[in-house]
Amino acid sequence: MFQKVAFIGLGLIGGSIARAIRAKYPDVWVAAKTASRQTLAYAYDNGIIQDAPGSLPELVGNADLIILAPPIELIIPYVKKIYPLTKPSAIILDTGSTKEEIVRALKKYSDKFIGCHPMFGSEKAGIASSAAELLQGHRVIFTPYRDTPRGKLLAVLQFFKGLGCRPCRADAREHDTAVAAISHVPYFNAAALLQTADNDMKRVLAATGFQSCTRVAESDPPWGVEVARTNRREVLRGLKKLRHEIAWLEQLIGRGDYKGLKEYLEYSRQIRRNIYK
Amino acid sequence: MFQKVAFIGLGLIGGSIARAIRAKYPDVWVAAKTASRQTLAYAYDNGIIQDAPGSLPELVGNADLIILAPPIELIIPYVKKIYPLTKPSAIILDTGSTKEEIVRALKKYSDKFIGCHPMFGSEKAGIASSAAELLQGHRVIFTPYRDTPRGKLLAVLQFFKGLGCRPCRADAREHDTAVAAISHVPYFNAAALLQTADNDMKRVLAATGFQSCTRVAESDPPWGVEVARTNRREVLRGLKKLRHEIAWLEQLIGRGDYKGLKEYLEYSRQIRRNIYK
Repeated sequence: MFQKVAFIGLGLIGGSIARAIRAKYPDVWVAAKTASRQTLAYAYDNGIIQDAPGSLPELVGNADLIILAPPIELIIPYVKKIYPLTKPSAIILDTGSTKEEIVRALKKYSDKFIGCHPMFGSEKAGIASSAAELLQGHRVIFTPYRDTPRGKLLAVLQFFKGLGCRPCRADAREHDTAVAAISHVPYFNAAALLQTADNDMKRVLAATGFQSCTRVAESDPPWGVEVARTNRREVLRGLKKLRHEIAWLEQLIGRGDYKGLKEYLEYSRQIRRNIYK
Repeated sequence: MFQKVAFIGLGLIGGSIARAIRAKYPDVWVAAKTASRQTLAYAYDNGIIQDAPGSLPELVGNADLIILAPPIELIIPYVKKIYPLTKPSAIILDTGSTKEEIVRALKKYSDKFIGCHPMFGSEKAGIASSAAELLQGHRVIFTPYRDTPRGKLLAVLQFFKGLGCRPCRADAREHDTAVAAISHVPYFNAAALLQTADNDMKRVLAATGFQSCTRVAESDPPWGVEVARTNRREVLRGLKKLRHEIAWLEQLIGRGDYKGLKEYLEYSRQIRRNIYK
């Protein structure tokens, strides 16, 4: 088990993991560094972290596990920067929601770095919205290298299982294709859907169904931009696929093929029921 | 106030209105006719209705308010059938989720018939899922004719306000355009989104965001077919508009216009915040 965990970045994701560690592993020492002083003060005052060293070498030098949860574009530079400062037995995890670019760029740090995507969240951002409960029952995906030390992989899998997550392993590219379909494209789609409802009458009539369909559009726009940038190919592929599905529905309705339409709707509902049993 | 209310059809919508009447207006006599014997027995046994006359003339002959909540394609024939059986002071409401076709077809019954769309619901269907609480705070749209007796319109507005709804008035066509955008298109869109997520890896990773985006796809496929049939033009227009928005997002992402993308995402989020303050 890890004795010291260091965080770089303590937003919704980092903050929630830190809280879960405090709750499930009270003996583990948690330290952090954040871009904002207020965040660090909040984390310290609320007992989410026990230490806030001033420098990176102090923070990561004797840490067993380092969790990088800054904005996604800072992950690659941070791994390169802290790698030489950490001890040989250290494990470095990121929390980026796309994996291929990061994992490819950090291949030569494979003795310490393992790609990771904790699949929980909320529309809200920031440490004040973080909660240990957000992790419970959710997937945490690991994208190890061929030469990732298996002892290290096993250790993080067990650690996250102990936090209440369901850790699993995936190929980075397969992961990015899948999250494009079930997270990124639905987000852009919700944004598009909202643009078609921008008038007073629609606003008045919009009820709980529309609210639920567009909930994910509350996510932070810079997150959306980073997702588009880092998972560009898969997002574009997914949006095109969705556009073709919509065009197909237009064809079915346009030519009055209501039998075909009913089958399509039934099949879609079945896909959903297979996911959320 | 109405003394006797008759229902034709007691599914989720009819059943919930009947329950709300029993709760808020305990002195009102509620009777019904349904396609299924079990539904009628359930409604009677659970005190949702007090009477189940065998024939239409008995049911509607002395009713002050008749609420038609059968499958949408039966609304027009039912109004024509019961119109001559009702007393001059009677009011006939439907509950169809599209209005233009119905309102146009029933123009000559305007002394009794008023188009109505109660905007509440759930993914679940049937009287067993009905509840008075489903109405609370939700819109009920009325689409009166130019020559609808204003006393009758006022009476139904007050009656539904008393049930806990927020009744309002709209033009039938404007209504259909709006519900296409905020209800019908999101439904078809959710079905399309599910088709793009039909593989094992995606199924494993799909979490609460995707669940929320696709919740409306649990609606009954025959409902979707009727919506496509009765609101065909507006649904097709809405789907095309959505497809163009998606194509525009593809362009922004494709050419790397991340400033434009960020503004688009921010604007979309603002639309949502204007709706759900």
